[in-house]
Amino acid sequence: MAIITLTTDFGEKDHFAGAIKGAIYSELPDVKIVDISHSVSPFNISEAAYIILNAYSSFPKGTIHLIGIDSELNQENKHIAILLDDHYFICANNGIMSMITNDIVPEKIVEINIHDKIQTSFPVLDVFVKVACHIARGGTLEVVGKSISNIKPITNLVPYINDEQTQIIGCVIYIDNYGNVITNIKKSFFESIGKGRDFEISARSHKFKQIYSKYSDVVNFEIPKEKRNDEGKGLVVFNASGYLEIAVYKSNSATVGSASTLMGLNLMDTVTINFIKQ
Amino acid sequence: MAIITLTTDFGEKDHFAGAIKGAIYSELPDVKIVDISHSVSPFNISEAAYIILNAYSSFPKGTIHLIGIDSELNQENKHIAILLDDHYFICANNGIMSMITNDIVPEKIVEINIHDKIQTSFPVLDVFVKVACHIARGGTLEVVGKSISNIKPITNLVPYINDEQTQIIGCVIYIDNYGNVITNIKKSFFESIGKGRDFEISARSHKFKQIYSKYSDVVNFEIPKEKRNDEGKGLVVFNASGYLEIAVYKSNSATVGSASTLMGLNLMDTVTINFIKQ
Amino acid sequence: MAIITLTTDFGEKDHFAGAIKGAIYSELPDVKIVDISHSVSPFNISEAAYIILNAYSSFPKGTIHLIGIDSELNQENKHIAILLDDHYFICANNGIMSMITNDIVPEKIVEINIHDKIQTSFPVLDVFVKVACHIARGGTLEVVGKSISNIKPITNLVPYINDEQTQIIGCVIYIDNYGNVITNIKKSFFESIGKGRDFEISARSHKFKQIYSKYSDVVNFEIPKEKRNDEGKGLVVFNASGYLEIAVYKSNSATVGSASTLMGLNLMDTVTINFIKQ
Repeated sequence: MAIITLTTDFGEKDHFAGAIKGAIYSELPDVKIVDISHSVSPFNISEAAYIILNAYSSFPKGTIHLIGIDSELNQENKHIAILLDDHYFICANNGIMSMITNDIVPEKIVEINIHDKIQTSFPVLDVFVKVACHIARGGTLEVVGKSISNIKPITNLVPYINDEQTQIIGCVIYIDNYGNVITNIKKSFFESIGKGRDFEISARSHKFKQIYSKYSDVVNFEIPKEKRNDEGKGLVVFNASGYLEIAVYKSNSATVGSASTLMGLNLMDTVTINFIKQ
Repeated sequence: MAIITLTTDFGEKDHFAGAIKGAIYSELPDVKIVDISHSVSPFNISEAAYIILNAYSSFPKGTIHLIGIDSELNQENKHIAILLDDHYFICANNGIMSMITNDIVPEKIVEINIHDKIQTSFPVLDVFVKVACHIARGGTLEVVGKSISNIKPITNLVPYINDEQTQIIGCVIYIDNYGNVITNIKKSFFESIGKGRDFEISARSHKFKQIYSKYSDVVNFEIPKEKRNDEGKGLVVFNASGYLEIAVYKSNSATVGSASTLMGLNLMDTVTINFIKQ
Repeated sequence: MAIITLTTDFGEKDHFAGAIKGAIYSELPDVKIVDISHSVSPFNISEAAYIILNAYSSFPKGTIHLIGIDSELNQENKHIAILLDDHYFICANNGIMSMITNDIVPEKIVEINIHDKIQTSFPVLDVFVKVACHIARGGTLEVVGKSISNIKPITNLVPYINDEQTQIIGCVIYIDNYGNVITNIKKSFFESIGKGRDFEISARSHKFKQIYSKYSDVVNFEIPKEKRNDEGKGLVVFNASGYLEIAVYKSNSATVGSASTLMGLNLMDTVTINFIKQ
């Protein structure tokens, strides 16, 4: 039984996601539909790219990922289907897939060309669902599109590194539900440049000299619990996805505050790492 | 295997939707439950009416739609089940179904009368689930209710049209996740009145003389991309559901603004179309 | 076919819940995954406790409830699995289960000890999913943990009662999607103390002398509908879960206001009941 996942900016309220599910079940009663997220910020390609990157690989091989963000067809925004890492992805050619294709070479990319038969102003419903069900029934990408070799990139994926290799300048690419601030600096990249040197991380006026491997490493468990004041402390971790993240211990944007609200860090803000010469 | 959809104002946080799903699976382990929306604004009948209207017909014939909005039983708010267009609907008799029954005559309506046996302050859980599972098992409406011939209407469904047929006065019935503003003026109605005449659409101080068939029609693709400023432009489209919609290209209420926030358009606000005499 | 439910503070946007579902389906393609809530306020143990308490028992016996709130493993926050009332619960030992265990004695509690083999900063994905799938395949708790006899409590579960039994002092433990304010005073407790005496309920400057059994009991149906002004009226009910709740009839925090917004009632605020001496 095939799995089709949904990642969209449709929100939680509108009928769009429900209609998509109905259309899929109408074609394939036995498929399994899994919501990844419908709360991507409207038209936010980078957010969608980060979400699908970090969700897809938990699913079984052969899963079909339908991504409905900025998917209106026009001459600059074609529809594509990609086979990569034994997963299928259906989306607009607007950069959403470039975080994944940066690391893994696609096995096949097609530009979807079944539109002649379909007049629609809701392409996720009328085109993406058709393609997803075709693949779920075992159909090949060639039947629904023509092969292409490249897809559109998004910028800001890779942090800047100076010639002396003493400085990494990255930026904030995602802010999560806890208000934690995620940068485009990956652990592997950091380690390959840093080579064990001491460092200082700067984000606005905040400085950090240590990167934790989990949030509660900020807690000094030797101090009795009632005397501690760890909650609300800023810290840096490599998160479960391997990205450098500026966090606040037990944060909540709505109450005690979060890295984003307390430090004033927003999407695209700069985060700098200076390595200490040894 | 039957499908039961859920449309409620329970929100995303509370236990209500989870409890409903548990109760359904307890009765029918093999049914498929599909969330349409749990984020209808509390007690907002019109929103729920628009959402279920636009979602239901994507589902296979025979689907059972459970709608939990303002469903507390009292002498003015009875529970009903409807068979219409080969779909089943279970809800309170509070107007939610009137957008659908305006276009399609119900095959059967019953007022649910299994309440004698059920003392409850959570009727969606204790009554609607029972009725839905009864239908899913192949039961008939007559067993759970007595036939009635009419249901309660909601007002503002149909726009006003003047005697000279030179003016349509509609209103905003829904604001979607992108802040787009949807009116009660349907494409078919507009065309039958307009008969190809030129027109001017007014919403507050904003005027439009053109209705697009898709959002990106507002873009002039002949201008190089970096010189364009289409994002944030106001426009009018007939949306995928066939309703006249005032939109902003690539809108986001939280960042660049949307039709609702930029033009100050809210639910129930007036939208006027004046046809030019020829 | 086993059911695994999810209750987390992951929010609706991030990839976390999607990744969890993918990981479960990768291990067990035929399991049924049901979202209870992903919108628990970050790190809010009490909210999660109230939600899982009120949702779990609608599910069939044998259901496995995975609760991902404040689940990072450290020396003060171990992982546990509980068998209780023929349901399984997997969570951190941080008090989430204490509202349930206050009423029902667990059949078995184990502290999960499969961590030696697993290095992770996302324990819900890497540990809880493993344990859930183990149980879903029919495995026993002893295989994944060592028996313990107690779990951590949360405070404020039980209201204060004075020696003369003339006063109950409770507090707000949950605010629901309608802005209704739910206290820790249960109907059975109220009745055992009150023994039918008259009473006055105080919350800030608001006083109530009556407890309804449903919301619309506040409506006087003898007055013609257009002359009533029930919407927006404050009232007290025992809610469907049996807790004393301060509500506003047809409330909506975003528009007409709610018990929480109109009366200024927040989590942990005091609600007092004074019984009248007879």
